[in-house]
Amino acid sequence: MLDKAPNGKVSNLLDALDKALSAGEVEDAVDLFQADCYWRDLVTFTWNIKTMEGKDQVRDMLKARLADTQPSNWKIADGEDASEADGITESWIQFETAVARGFGHLRLRDGRIWTLLTTMSELKGHEEPVGFDRPMGAKHGAERNRKTWKEEREAETAELGHTRQPYCVIVGGGQGGIALGARLRQLNVPTIIVEKNERPGDSWRTRYKSLCLHDPVWYDHLPYLPFPRNWPVFSPKDKIGDWLEMYTKVMELNYWGSTVCKKASYDEKTHEWIVVVERDGKEIVLKPKQLVLATGMSAKANMPKFEGMDVFKGDQHHSSQHPGPDKYKNKKAVVIGSNNSAHDICAALWEAGADVTMVQRSTTHIVRSDSLMELGLASLYSEQAVQSGMTTAKADLIFASLPYKILHEFQIPVYNAIRERDADFYKRLEKAGFLLDYGDDDSGLFMKYLRRGSGYYIDVGASELIANGSIKLKSGVGVKKLTEHSVILSDGTELPADLVVYATGYGSMNGWAADLISKGVADKVGKVWGLGSNTTKDPGPWEGEQRNMWKPTQQEALWFHGGNLHQSRHYSQFLSLQLKARMEGIPTPVYGLQKVHHLG
Amino acid sequence: MLDKAPNGKVSNLLDALDKALSAGEVEDAVDLFQADCYWRDLVTFTWNIKTMEGKDQVRDMLKARLADTQPSNWKIADGEDASEADGITESWIQFETAVARGFGHLRLRDGRIWTLLTTMSELKGHEEPVGFDRPMGAKHGAERNRKTWKEEREAETAELGHTRQPYCVIVGGGQGGIALGARLRQLNVPTIIVEKNERPGDSWRTRYKSLCLHDPVWYDHLPYLPFPRNWPVFSPKDKIGDWLEMYTKVMELNYWGSTVCKKASYDEKTHEWIVVVERDGKEIVLKPKQLVLATGMSAKANMPKFEGMDVFKGDQHHSSQHPGPDKYKNKKAVVIGSNNSAHDICAALWEAGADVTMVQRSTTHIVRSDSLMELGLASLYSEQAVQSGMTTAKADLIFASLPYKILHEFQIPVYNAIRERDADFYKRLEKAGFLLDYGDDDSGLFMKYLRRGSGYYIDVGASELIANGSIKLKSGVGVKKLTEHSVILSDGTELPADLVVYATGYGSMNGWAADLISKGVADKVGKVWGLGSNTTKDPGPWEGEQRNMWKPTQQEALWFHGGNLHQSRHYSQFLSLQLKARMEGIPTPVYGLQKVHHLG
Repeated sequence: MLDKAPNGKVSNLLDALDKALSAGEVEDAVDLFQADCYWRDLVTFTWNIKTMEGKDQVRDMLKARLADTQPSNWKIADGEDASEADGITESWIQFETAVARGFGHLRLRDGRIWTLLTTMSELKGHEEPVGFDRPMGAKHGAERNRKTWKEEREAETAELGHTRQPYCVIVGGGQGGIALGARLRQLNVPTIIVEKNERPGDSWRTRYKSLCLHDPVWYDHLPYLPFPRNWPVFSPKDKIGDWLEMYTKVMELNYWGSTVCKKASYDEKTHEWIVVVERDGKEIVLKPKQLVLATGMSAKANMPKFEGMDVFKGDQHHSSQHPGPDKYKNKKAVVIGSNNSAHDICAALWEAGADVTMVQRSTTHIVRSDSLMELGLASLYSEQAVQSGMTTAKADLIFASLPYKILHEFQIPVYNAIRERDADFYKRLEKAGFLLDYGDDDSGLFMKYLRRGSGYYIDVGASELIANGSIKLKSGVGVKKLTEHSVILSDGTELPADLVVYATGYGSMNGWAADLISKGVADKVGKVWGLGSNTTKDPGPWEGEQRNMWKPTQQEALWFHGGNLHQSRHYSQFLSLQLKARMEGIPTPVYGLQKVHHLG
Repeated sequence: MLDKAPNGKVSNLLDALDKALSAGEVEDAVDLFQADCYWRDLVTFTWNIKTMEGKDQVRDMLKARLADTQPSNWKIADGEDASEADGITESWIQFETAVARGFGHLRLRDGRIWTLLTTMSELKGHEEPVGFDRPMGAKHGAERNRKTWKEEREAETAELGHTRQPYCVIVGGGQGGIALGARLRQLNVPTIIVEKNERPGDSWRTRYKSLCLHDPVWYDHLPYLPFPRNWPVFSPKDKIGDWLEMYTKVMELNYWGSTVCKKASYDEKTHEWIVVVERDGKEIVLKPKQLVLATGMSAKANMPKFEGMDVFKGDQHHSSQHPGPDKYKNKKAVVIGSNNSAHDICAALWEAGADVTMVQRSTTHIVRSDSLMELGLASLYSEQAVQSGMTTAKADLIFASLPYKILHEFQIPVYNAIRERDADFYKRLEKAGFLLDYGDDDSGLFMKYLRRGSGYYIDVGASELIANGSIKLKSGVGVKKLTEHSVILSDGTELPADLVVYATGYGSMNGWAADLISKGVADKVGKVWGLGSNTTKDPGPWEGEQRNMWKPTQQEALWFHGGNLHQSRHYSQFLSLQLKARMEGIPTPVYGLQKVHHLG
């Protein structure tokens, strides 16, 4: 029998919360939280992505936002039951605000709220046309001169951006821009996606040929249209490219391929962007109200400056420009860097018969793909999870419900287990000279991703080649300079080279704002990404959320969107709702807009 | 509380069945059936699509097939419970044969089997790579000169049909060919789909511009990749065209567009087809072991022959060639026919400002789309059904579990209810002179579809135009002849005409066999479609299943596939398993191969 007692606990708590909030009794509401509590809000109370940490922050937020928000109808979500384990009572919850319907997650400890997640599902009166409300398609009845679906699409294509301005322009048509574009289409927000490549998916297709997704399929679904059950665990790049292309088509996105965004500026008087793009060699000026940079957190290449790069006579390029190994058979290749791209490229070069040396300048976190899947992701994103009834939407929300402040505490045991399981593997790597780390606090890959977006390799085979010497390794050294035919390392070693690949990572996305808009706006907005954890490459102070991602920035009407497929899927929901609310003139007072501490 | 008692009844019955069949005791097994019983088998016992009607036919089949089939492990399907209502106990069941795993459905009455459905889920050792068994995509580890996904696809495309022969060729790349192609791809059966149009979906795109699917979205899903929740109820033709195109691409089908199949012949010695196709102006000879005609049950146009068609100076064409109404504003149009296409075309012409007359030569069955959805389909295929947990797979199997012999008995009350609900509507149509019918036995639309594939219109608006006189109607008359500028009807009426559309339906699919192969083979195979119900346009004797569809024909290695999207989805499963078994050399002795009674 299902234990129904937890339902009672949760219902009592929610009734008390409902009563306190309805009465405007902030102290009564705050009393329902325990001392070390976390309330993460995705745009329902704060019109921001914000975690309130501790009772004082909860109190401050409620004082500022309760009257406007008018929350009500708190209850256990329809069809759900609370559960209890290890002294924690958990439940899916639902609630409403004056303008929206919300869904969330609650954890109680000692009868009080430990974690609360509140997320916006939909704006009242602006629900998405899905399920019972899906469009009819055929227009039953008869009407003179009505347009067909195709004629309407053709008219929209002809008008939007020409005789009619989009409300939103998304710069960057990779997975992030596409996922957000799909949400905005459903919300009837006129949007143009501007992409420099010709076709959707080209940002994957044009990468090195051995590239596959490093995240498994269950983690990668796009909104509305999940991958089928026969989709590979790790999509090859061209296959995900084809999927994105067909997705863009069937979701009816206004996607301007082969279009370069040249500059953008914000007119503070008209509250309008002036976005200059070049399409088919012709300059077009778009005037949207909102501008989203979805240019990719891995697209603003960090190209290092080494002495002698100008005299080197071989091929040299950033990893993002690497064409693949085909022309380097029997050639000598030096790859500077030791993260994902560096490993993938080294392995592909070795497979093609090149002589490859990896230059590892600093420690790197390595996790075997199997171990990551089984120990890191399986409970939420795996075939087992699917079989046991876990949906993608729920997995995303459980993930979102874990406060960033303490997320590393959940992660450390996972990576300890992985270190134990793969002890031999790590020993062999170290024996080959590879410099390992597990993150500053041993919290592993996912925290590294959230904090700095770099510093790791998910091993799909290259580590074995390093361990057995197939890929040569020089570690703990830097690059001193290049000569015509070699790379000279900081320890004096000379590596003869026909090819040098700089797998040296990517810069902060506000670099795009500097390029497209101005240095002033880039500085005003500040660094994008990172939690302010005060660990390597993620300087403090503590932010509590990803800097500048999917939420209002210090520049009115400028937004950053992106991340991996999981984040593109999940956060596009909340960014699209923020944009829709603004388009509809629903007041969106932002609580706790982040301050800027770092320029980039 | 769920009543678990029905489980006991079903388990007892299945245990007895299992015991009798395992022991080879046919009589004991037959005793478990009631006198008026139906056992419908989709390729598990019979390697055929076959309904055994009554105990004698069950006995005959078991005598012929039990020893080979070796059925075992009959039980209530995992995770399911039997249920009971109105004296009928129902359950989902599972079982095995020597070579396959089966799933089915059982109805007990008075403790004995009333209906039994047995269907093949998968061949042992040839399971589809889905779920836990999906492909990895990325090949972990490292291997010299291995190919990427893209290189493998390119190699396959270059080889198949040129240096390597496909096992199967499907002629016709509409929904039927595409759905079957997807199943065969999953089963690793090398297949080429040959389609005369350039792109997948063109068979929809090239039809008249107002065309939308007449069946709602829940009924129309393709295998593996269901439509998303925001898909329209009735897909506009160009939108379904785009879906088919992307589906073909992401399912990695070998689709030869702009390719005409010119002729085919079967070499009885080598058991190989010689299929001559023209692709890009070049003749290519394909030599598959199996040939599937998926050319569409609505593609072999019935073009009537009327006196004066040669002197008529206006436009005239079959409905399948009708370009849409745009050039007929203020013109006089005469549409011969009164089924779906005739109504759609009349309405679109009226909307575009043409003067339209429909010539109704015989009675027609009309059902309002809403009524059909709500009373005819909603329990299995609707948003309500989805919400209450009905899956597409289960809906298909419940549908399949109702024996054709008595299906009209289930349908008559539905259409009686529709006649009552829409009495005013029908009265107004009759007042306008429209000649109605509800099928020979008042069993309505679906039986008409199964029996003759014609004779009805699903009303999405044109009927109102007929009722109110916007579309002019001449009913109960035939066409006598055409003059230079008019159509003369059998009652002497002269209809001035700038355009004549012959919405005169389609011929039997074995007409394609006559065109492509030979008259001899077409006659050997006989009429395709129809149940032999001895109703209008479906001459007896009783067949019990659709003639020649999705099952072995009198011509070795020749198959017919098609029907609506529901049938293309559902029956492609069983046709693909029949083809896979043959490819793998699994014996497939066909029980009860149909006899031929009609040539076409």
